[in-house]
Amino acid sequence: MKAFFKVTDLETMVSLKAGFEPVESETISLNEALGRILAADLKADQDLPGFDRSTMDGYAVAASSTFGASEANPAYLNITGAVQMGKTPESRIGPGQAARIATGGMLPEGADSVVMVEHTDAIDEDTIEVYCSVVPGQHTVARDEDAAAGQTLLTSGTCLRPQEIGILAACGQTRVNVFCKPKVGIISSGDEIIPISSRPAPGQVRDINGHTLSALVLQSGGRPAHYGVAADSFQALESVCRKALSENDMVIISGGSSVGARDLTLDVLKKIPQSHILVHGVSIRPGKPTILARCENKAFWGLPGHVTSAMIVFLIVVRPFLEKIAGRPESKSVTVHARLSRNIASAQGRVDYVRVRLVEKQNTLWAEPVLGASGLIRTMVAADGLIAVDLNSEGLDQGAMVKVQLL
Amino acid sequence: MKAFFKVTDLETMVSLKAGFEPVESETISLNEALGRILAADLKADQDLPGFDRSTMDGYAVAASSTFGASEANPAYLNITGAVQMGKTPESRIGPGQAARIATGGMLPEGADSVVMVEHTDAIDEDTIEVYCSVVPGQHTVARDEDAAAGQTLLTSGTCLRPQEIGILAACGQTRVNVFCKPKVGIISSGDEIIPISSRPAPGQVRDINGHTLSALVLQSGGRPAHYGVAADSFQALESVCRKALSENDMVIISGGSSVGARDLTLDVLKKIPQSHILVHGVSIRPGKPTILARCENKAFWGLPGHVTSAMIVFLIVVRPFLEKIAGRPESKSVTVHARLSRNIASAQGRVDYVRVRLVEKQNTLWAEPVLGASGLIRTMVAADGLIAVDLNSEGLDQGAMVKVQLL
Repeated sequence: MKAFFKVTDLETMVSLKAGFEPVESETISLNEALGRILAADLKADQDLPGFDRSTMDGYAVAASSTFGASEANPAYLNITGAVQMGKTPESRIGPGQAARIATGGMLPEGADSVVMVEHTDAIDEDTIEVYCSVVPGQHTVARDEDAAAGQTLLTSGTCLRPQEIGILAACGQTRVNVFCKPKVGIISSGDEIIPISSRPAPGQVRDINGHTLSALVLQSGGRPAHYGVAADSFQALESVCRKALSENDMVIISGGSSVGARDLTLDVLKKIPQSHILVHGVSIRPGKPTILARCENKAFWGLPGHVTSAMIVFLIVVRPFLEKIAGRPESKSVTVHARLSRNIASAQGRVDYVRVRLVEKQNTLWAEPVLGASGLIRTMVAADGLIAVDLNSEGLDQGAMVKVQLL
Repeated sequence: MKAFFKVTDLETMVSLKAGFEPVESETISLNEALGRILAADLKADQDLPGFDRSTMDGYAVAASSTFGASEANPAYLNITGAVQMGKTPESRIGPGQAARIATGGMLPEGADSVVMVEHTDAIDEDTIEVYCSVVPGQHTVARDEDAAAGQTLLTSGTCLRPQEIGILAACGQTRVNVFCKPKVGIISSGDEIIPISSRPAPGQVRDINGHTLSALVLQSGGRPAHYGVAADSFQALESVCRKALSENDMVIISGGSSVGARDLTLDVLKKIPQSHILVHGVSIRPGKPTILARCENKAFWGLPGHVTSAMIVFLIVVRPFLEKIAGRPESKSVTVHARLSRNIASAQGRVDYVRVRLVEKQNTLWAEPVLGASGLIRTMVAADGLIAVDLNSEGLDQGAMVKVQLL
């Protein structure tokens, strides 16, 4: 009944992601591109904004016409007309001349700057007094100041936030080439697990893992496919594993917490052609009994049955692999720094993950460890983040500055 | 041409969100509920996990049978059988007896704890030696330890992360009552603005704002509807504003940066029945010329035309309102602490928002201000976050600890 395995350290384990390649790319509408990963560099199709542009409401002038102007000694300029928005100005601005211009308007030929309307007074229909001198370029944006035609603005692998959507719009990209969302097959196993629509009899529990892992995949940019609950039999497990492997870019099985169930998963993996067990056991807690196999070019994961352990293994180990095949070169989990509210003990030789709640008191952010048995889902619900206690550490002291990975 | 307005301070402005009510709720599949806002409390439908459960592979025992057991003086227990996963154990455990049990198995009657398999040796088929004593409850989870039937597990207004999806699954909620995603109408205005599919002539720019704001709405849990570009005429603007107001829960107009365009927006708002201008000008930079009107029970926003200003106003001011009507009581923007890499100057009397890039050097996180004219979209692309320079401050010194709101 006892299983022995050689545990892999966390860093080595995560570095194995280098062996897996990104999925294909697809072209989608810009409106659907938020949060997706760019699969090609973006180059500016033309200068941005494309013309010298005013950034204020006022008058377009040659700066030299205003040199020396002050409250005591204003410059008098002759108004030649008004710049129409979205149009090339018709007339040229000469020395001593000015054209009305609104924010975003195109500078007329001869003008190199804008005097703010607040620094002028109208004398009559055709003349203004200017109380303040401007320098060339003031209150304007040059035609290629945001980007010069051909310049690389975004690189492949960029995750598209609203501002990246904006720059794609600026370049006229109504459609964008992005990496496909990796398809991830999710299998729950265990004779005690029942679909969540059923009411558990004594000894049975609902399939929490399948739904939690699906949500984690979705949140990490993948497309989950839930294959339901497989019974603890070689045939049942083999058949669903083969199906999931053929239909997805990655497969995660969880739920059989017992050594027996884990052995079954290993037996199935060994029988699948071209599969290699890369890792059986990782030096983190919770999550030690994690399995990683390579089946042809796909990662196959065996995660612990406790939902909290499965979640933590997903966040710490699986997600970097998923992001790698999703086309993201670097995993970007958000971390914040906080002070630990009380001592925590830890064993050496493994990385311990502790759930914490973040509380701000007197302008200091505190990380309060969440109490309760580690297998309980409500400890994850109560938590805002995780802190890692290093494998060379025997614990952390109250008041220590810790890095919290947000959940 | 000059417009005067009384500026509202930021705190007052954001507090106005109290006057807007959440949208309706809807019932959706649990598989689609990630990131949605719960519209009703969740109570446990039964005890969780529902039975006393083993958290280890080993033997279910009465703890008292192991008292005093050690390597030198092991306890000898008689094996009565094995607990089947997902089933109620058939036989009772008496003193001196043990039943094989796997992680997740149900404790037999008479057993109150589990001895880990690692702390035992099998003598023969029916007998084990136990080298370690356990206390009642050890290596088990009690039937109601995660939750007692009827206990409130989640409250209305909770944003559903993977762990909340997990606890909903644990309670058998295949469908969930969540707030609808607020519909937000987005209008771009300005004679110089053209659809992004067109190639700009001199003086014209593509509609960056419409697409960037749509992405921000989507990211904030809303459902954007883009009404395209309205020309700077009263009739065009009035007609699209009325249509957008009738079809959405909130409307955002942007793009007419000039005073003339803003005046037009104000004129249109004044003509719409039951509309009140709540704010015209807010003491932040960029973003001062922001307009907020209430049209019946809906917020109508006039945002600055520069895309970077529009983005910052959205993040700082509009998003709290959107989250309020989306059913989220508290806005939760993620902030991290970092040290400022160089001095920044600021004027008193307004909150200045500065774009920063986050760089980790020697275990310290530095916030480096992004250089370049503030209107340029690439300054937002280069930024990881925003820092606020308080309205009572004249600037911040190099090395100061600052709070960075992530973008």
